[in-house]
Amino acid sequence: MTLPVQPDRFLADLHKLRSFGASGTGKGVVRRAYTPADLDARDWLAEQIAAAGLTPHFDEMGNLFGLAEGPSLLMGSHSDSQPEGGWLDGALGVIAALEVARAAKEAGGPAVSMVSFQDEEGRFGVTTGSAVWSGHMSQEAADRLTDTDGVTLAEARAVLGDRVAGPVEQGRFTGFMEMHIEQGPWLDAEGDRIGVVSDIVGIRSMMITFEGEQNHAGTTPMHLRKDAFQAMVTFAGRLNERFRNVVTPSTVWTNGHVTLHPNATSVVPGKVTFSMQWRDAETDRLGRMETIIRDTAREVAEETGMAVDFGDMLWLDPVAMDGRLKGALADAAEAVAPGKWREMPSGALHDATNVAQHMPVAMLFVPSIGGISHDFAEDTAEEDLVTGLKVLAGAVARLG
Amino acid sequence: MTLPVQPDRFLADLHKLRSFGASGTGKGVVRRAYTPADLDARDWLAEQIAAAGLTPHFDEMGNLFGLAEGPSLLMGSHSDSQPEGGWLDGALGVIAALEVARAAKEAGGPAVSMVSFQDEEGRFGVTTGSAVWSGHMSQEAADRLTDTDGVTLAEARAVLGDRVAGPVEQGRFTGFMEMHIEQGPWLDAEGDRIGVVSDIVGIRSMMITFEGEQNHAGTTPMHLRKDAFQAMVTFAGRLNERFRNVVTPSTVWTNGHVTLHPNATSVVPGKVTFSMQWRDAETDRLGRMETIIRDTAREVAEETGMAVDFGDMLWLDPVAMDGRLKGALADAAEAVAPGKWREMPSGALHDATNVAQHMPVAMLFVPSIGGISHDFAEDTAEEDLVTGLKVLAGAVARLG
Repeated sequence: MTLPVQPDRFLADLHKLRSFGASGTGKGVVRRAYTPADLDARDWLAEQIAAAGLTPHFDEMGNLFGLAEGPSLLMGSHSDSQPEGGWLDGALGVIAALEVARAAKEAGGPAVSMVSFQDEEGRFGVTTGSAVWSGHMSQEAADRLTDTDGVTLAEARAVLGDRVAGPVEQGRFTGFMEMHIEQGPWLDAEGDRIGVVSDIVGIRSMMITFEGEQNHAGTTPMHLRKDAFQAMVTFAGRLNERFRNVVTPSTVWTNGHVTLHPNATSVVPGKVTFSMQWRDAETDRLGRMETIIRDTAREVAEETGMAVDFGDMLWLDPVAMDGRLKGALADAAEAVAPGKWREMPSGALHDATNVAQHMPVAMLFVPSIGGISHDFAEDTAEEDLVTGLKVLAGAVARLG
Repeated sequence: MTLPVQPDRFLADLHKLRSFGASGTGKGVVRRAYTPADLDARDWLAEQIAAAGLTPHFDEMGNLFGLAEGPSLLMGSHSDSQPEGGWLDGALGVIAALEVARAAKEAGGPAVSMVSFQDEEGRFGVTTGSAVWSGHMSQEAADRLTDTDGVTLAEARAVLGDRVAGPVEQGRFTGFMEMHIEQGPWLDAEGDRIGVVSDIVGIRSMMITFEGEQNHAGTTPMHLRKDAFQAMVTFAGRLNERFRNVVTPSTVWTNGHVTLHPNATSVVPGKVTFSMQWRDAETDRLGRMETIIRDTAREVAEETGMAVDFGDMLWLDPVAMDGRLKGALADAAEAVAPGKWREMPSGALHDATNVAQHMPVAMLFVPSIGGISHDFAEDTAEEDLVTGLKVLAGAVARLG
């Protein structure tokens, strides 16, 4: 059996979704969680869900489900974007799920539901919508998270208003499949069309604050300073040295956010808060890195007479994909793109990590041109997008 | 002869000036150049100037003069503040000048004028108001400067409206004296009441930008990254090592401002712009440090395949104080606080540096409690403020 997916309808919907929050720079989008662009996109998605004969359903977080009746396979991803995001990250998996669910409905089965999770891109945390849905994080804890402007998630999600229909039971779904762009360089560089994911790396992320002494940049001798910028520089440099004996070539760590206070040219900065995020496929290694991070930060603070503070740590452990679902994707990949696919780990975090706490999960990658994502320049050849859609539909057909 | 300065009137006016932009935290003030608090303070100052029988006069930059007739000695400082400033920095020198000029007028001479320069604290540059008045920077160049929000000085100074009366000739003044808090730890630590400044250190300041590649923080391997944060860390760490062979214990350097782009936890930062400021009493050393800064930044950029850009460099050379004016301050200090004063360099930059291009200048320090300034906690004992006022008045009387 095959599912009658329609590539043209799929691509048209994908471009339509791009129009919500279109950045005006290439195909880029600005559609952060709970902003007007995000809500408009979700309202439009709800209309498409209803038109496909599924039931649109928002939960308390703003996760939007398109529910089939009875037990069903769940597919999807997220439709929120990074502050400067690409048009495919998340959106591709949502529209591919919509098309497969629509085609399955038109074909009279199998039962396929879809979802667009909220705040996968971490305006507030990390994969916040699926973390709350899966119970990895309580709604109360999530509501206290703040974005970089100090807005709480509780304040932000109030804009959902009467869209919210209530919780969705995890038990109604038999499994979860997510199609996504690779967001890395490997498929594009090697000329493969499809990646079948073996496992998703784990992630740890927290904010670190050094607090020293704000003072005049001309009259305070270097040896008397408690300069928060210099503490951060010493910490980050020392960390790079110490990680060498612990990491593998696929381990990554990133300081993507810095807030310096008071951030004035002629003032010795008294305080800095910066993000520390690290990822690896092994839980043990993530733990060893955490120890080095905390020890090094405390050491630098002690040497310079400063205070150090660690924010709450957000974490997701590495997750292996389900053998049966992964096998269906691999079989479909070999049928659609013979010899042009590979099994590979996912260095990026995905909603599938959270969903895996309740059901079997699997993931499918298509190439990212130049490996670029989280950037207006993110793109994938439309031919590859359609190949991915066909593999996804083929796997659903195989699973029955 | 002595000048009949009135300590109570002087202290009352100083506290009144503090009320413009009072931060609500201790005695702190928030009175950045050209903000409503700054303009209200200047309008109030203009009233006091007129009441003292001097002529209030705003120039194009918003520098506010209180002009005596004929040739006169100029005294003053600035009434704008840092983003989180103390109540004395600049304000003390302005109100001390007002009181001395007022007392001199009441005593029938000598002729004393006063000034509150604009934007000494560098919302736009470094000592911007006195830099333009002295011709160190053209009005056209100054107008193109932007603050950290992207507002140009030309836009900001438009709020002056019809206050502007036109230029003030430098040639009408016979010299310039500025009283200021030390902003450093030495007088307070040694128990001295007065510092007579020997020379003011020179300063260099510019913005440096590293531009690499913005990318996903999970899928981009460390060896393929062009991470702007890491470039800044490598640069700043290497600079500290290389400066060791060049600097003296009184040389200082500061990175007080950082803007990371896009500043998101899960994105490898593609761009960083940060301030690089350094100060020393020797012009040669300032130049050697500049060479190291530019070479090191270019080297880091080249190693990592990034681009580096240097913004315009703002600079002021070291300046020695005038012997005759300095001698008058020293004589008055010995008379008012025998054995409790010292000659010392100024590590902070002051408007006097610019004014020195046109006339003899001298400066007087009073202690900063704990050496703290550019902070809400900045303070000086009122007894020391009055001692400074008396020394200033004594020097004017000696100069005749």
